[in-house]
Amino acid sequence: MESSLQTALRAAFHPRSIAVIGASNDLNKLGGSEIRLLREAGYAGKIYPINPKEESIQGLKAYPSVADVPDEVERAVIILPTRLVPDAVRDCAKKKVKVVQIYSAGFGEFGEAGKALEQELLAAAKEAGMRIIGPNCIGTYSPSGRISFISGTSLQSGHVAFVSQSGGIAFDIIDRGEVLGIRFSKVISIGNSIDLDHPDYLEYLLEDPDTKVIGCYMESVRDGQRLLQLLKRLTPKKPVVVLKGGRTESGTQSVASHTGSLAGNYQIWQALFRQTGVIPVTSVDEMLTALLALQSLKTYPAGRVAMIGNGGGATVLATDTLEERGLKLAKLSSTTVERIAQLGVANNGRNVNPIDLPAYELSVKEGQLFGDLVRAFSQDPNVNYILFHINLIPFATYGNLAEILEQFARQLETVDPSAVNLVGVLRSNEKPEIEAVRFEAMRKLHQLGIPVFRTVEQGIYGIAVAANGLGGVR
Amino acid sequence: MESSLQTALRAAFHPRSIAVIGASNDLNKLGGSEIRLLREAGYAGKIYPINPKEESIQGLKAYPSVADVPDEVERAVIILPTRLVPDAVRDCAKKKVKVVQIYSAGFGEFGEAGKALEQELLAAAKEAGMRIIGPNCIGTYSPSGRISFISGTSLQSGHVAFVSQSGGIAFDIIDRGEVLGIRFSKVISIGNSIDLDHPDYLEYLLEDPDTKVIGCYMESVRDGQRLLQLLKRLTPKKPVVVLKGGRTESGTQSVASHTGSLAGNYQIWQALFRQTGVIPVTSVDEMLTALLALQSLKTYPAGRVAMIGNGGGATVLATDTLEERGLKLAKLSSTTVERIAQLGVANNGRNVNPIDLPAYELSVKEGQLFGDLVRAFSQDPNVNYILFHINLIPFATYGNLAEILEQFARQLETVDPSAVNLVGVLRSNEKPEIEAVRFEAMRKLHQLGIPVFRTVEQGIYGIAVAANGLGGVR
Repeated sequence: MESSLQTALRAAFHPRSIAVIGASNDLNKLGGSEIRLLREAGYAGKIYPINPKEESIQGLKAYPSVADVPDEVERAVIILPTRLVPDAVRDCAKKKVKVVQIYSAGFGEFGEAGKALEQELLAAAKEAGMRIIGPNCIGTYSPSGRISFISGTSLQSGHVAFVSQSGGIAFDIIDRGEVLGIRFSKVISIGNSIDLDHPDYLEYLLEDPDTKVIGCYMESVRDGQRLLQLLKRLTPKKPVVVLKGGRTESGTQSVASHTGSLAGNYQIWQALFRQTGVIPVTSVDEMLTALLALQSLKTYPAGRVAMIGNGGGATVLATDTLEERGLKLAKLSSTTVERIAQLGVANNGRNVNPIDLPAYELSVKEGQLFGDLVRAFSQDPNVNYILFHINLIPFATYGNLAEILEQFARQLETVDPSAVNLVGVLRSNEKPEIEAVRFEAMRKLHQLGIPVFRTVEQGIYGIAVAANGLGGVR
Repeated sequence: MESSLQTALRAAFHPRSIAVIGASNDLNKLGGSEIRLLREAGYAGKIYPINPKEESIQGLKAYPSVADVPDEVERAVIILPTRLVPDAVRDCAKKKVKVVQIYSAGFGEFGEAGKALEQELLAAAKEAGMRIIGPNCIGTYSPSGRISFISGTSLQSGHVAFVSQSGGIAFDIIDRGEVLGIRFSKVISIGNSIDLDHPDYLEYLLEDPDTKVIGCYMESVRDGQRLLQLLKRLTPKKPVVVLKGGRTESGTQSVASHTGSLAGNYQIWQALFRQTGVIPVTSVDEMLTALLALQSLKTYPAGRVAMIGNGGGATVLATDTLEERGLKLAKLSSTTVERIAQLGVANNGRNVNPIDLPAYELSVKEGQLFGDLVRAFSQDPNVNYILFHINLIPFATYGNLAEILEQFARQLETVDPSAVNLVGVLRSNEKPEIEAVRFEAMRKLHQLGIPVFRTVEQGIYGIAVAANGLGGVR
């Protein structure tokens, strides 16, 4: 039987019916865009707009109150001025709504009066066994449930879940993640999390068969012991990456103004992460790098890497970063060393790993040499990961960059992906014309299942996260 | 009187005449592009192509040997097969060339035979008092001398010098630096540095009135004591940022294959950096961030920062990063707090610093509120740096992104730049259409002298570097 938590979160991610309380015909208002976004996403369940002043909203029959809806309402979204929220929550409780997401802000983050209001909401919900998401949260993204809070973003399903105590960060992770090739099972903005809190979402994700990797942006948690227990159960099965907001004294004060919560002492959090094998990160960029790596790469604790790229200095720095991140240069088998020698590369004191070749050599014969070298690496059992780092600018100087990158992608198509993990770094100078070519190349590499990073440092950090896999890094 | 070192390096950066030994009519060859690049850059001195097989090269009279040039040759560039280099160097020495840059590779980085060749070159040069740059180096970039080794790059002069033991990294720093708004006095690729070495270039830059900030990519140095002495003299006058290649065991082996040199123990290098107040970085991205910050921002050791941006979670994370980097949130004066309150921002528990406002509020009335808040910060004597961080995507959702960013730039035009240091962060999702708008906005902000970074973490790192200024960070 479904637990009440499972019922509530199933209704959050896969509701059969949704009431939008505060629905509007004005698409520029939040109450208007909520319905528009559901339709854009292709949501197939029932939508009930609630607004006492309208007969119909966006072509749907409107109801004065959720009580007036003739059928079951599994999920409600409340988009109302703060003072109207408590009554709406009480209405939902009476209607036996399973889960209510409160978009409205102006609660605990506004001080004591707001905190009192939160207690009112909790009391009303608890009595009816209804669960609350938020308040002060911007939504839920569930590709398989056809629910989104971002216009025009991919609804391809994937295996990464993200739980966020910041709506903006949830938005960033979906929006930027899509470009980077991350595909999600569920993303949820949990706001002030006065009822459903991090441990609840994690408990749900523990059993969610669609979720294999979990990321969290956490500012606070009410029940630290329960979080500890859940993380202990989770991390042996699914890697968990945590970005903690409020690590410092000033950050903690900033948290109070953001979600009205207490961030606590970061040393305690760090101990928790160590004890449970959580992968801690300190920026959205690191979070995206870690999620992309965990989604795309297999775990090889030996962490033996072969590298190829253009740039002698870049190769030296990549090697340093590799070792500083606890990874190792793969020691190639004699067969591989011979193959590379036959390709004319391993002469004059040149290394066979890492390989540093100028752009004009790498791009000859439609990238044949590049392909041959990567294939040689990929067939060596001593190699776990292959990092290829391409500084795009020298290629753009020597030839048609887009064409060269297409040739490289075609070469990589012939590498057996089960044998080895390919990791790409495409370095740009941020000029729009280079960025446009880079974007297309990235998409082609994504089709081959190859993650692509912007800097060598990010690529190596990604490998370090994947190599440790469920164990965590740092 | 000019020292011999000064004579040589003056001839490297501002030569009255250049012989290109190995010049070619084929523009796709290095010996061809060298002359093309000099002309593209508007080099005004004499160019003497040297090639025994040609009468004229690119419209210039060619000479069989440098000995045949009828006038003085201040600087020679040798672009020949390795085995022909020693004779060319001997010719230059006889001709009393002041400095010879050896482009050709295949020396110390190819093992013992190559090292013996290097000794031959050194002996020939020493006898004549001629200095050698390289071998295995790609060139010199001197905007005021109208010399460049990169096609199509800005030749605007600036105050940042970069000395690089990797040609690729020198190329990156110029190419990427230009986009970021860094302007250079001199950049030099020093290759295997068998004669002129880091301390020589630093000695020259110490006295160079055009250079105010120095960056170095170092793999090795022959005379550690001399480097120590020079850094001690330099850092009180000009900040020095060092990116060290070969920090680890594998990296050190990689260095041997790159420039044929010994990287040494990184702990010794770290001690040297601490002792001399050098700012150490570990990636090209950090180097660029540090150079841009040192070029653009004044030093305020108090490091008091005011922040404004969109995104609650982003603001919390920015605050954490700020404190972790040793900076402080500025405590605003009561006047400023009042002004912000009058703007309707400081209510409902909202902070006055950092300020977190959603995109739709920041962009109202042509960015008036944004401008008012930045002006309020800028007039507060307690504020040293103002960081504004804009996540571009929500703005693109609410309105015309390019227009909004133009309005922001117009607002910032009215901020007195002498009163405070503005630092911008424009966050993108890497989509080409966003990158194109971001690029244009960055250029507009550069015209106002405002450095722009890609992430909040980079912006704050830049402020940390500038706040410590000559003292160094970490």
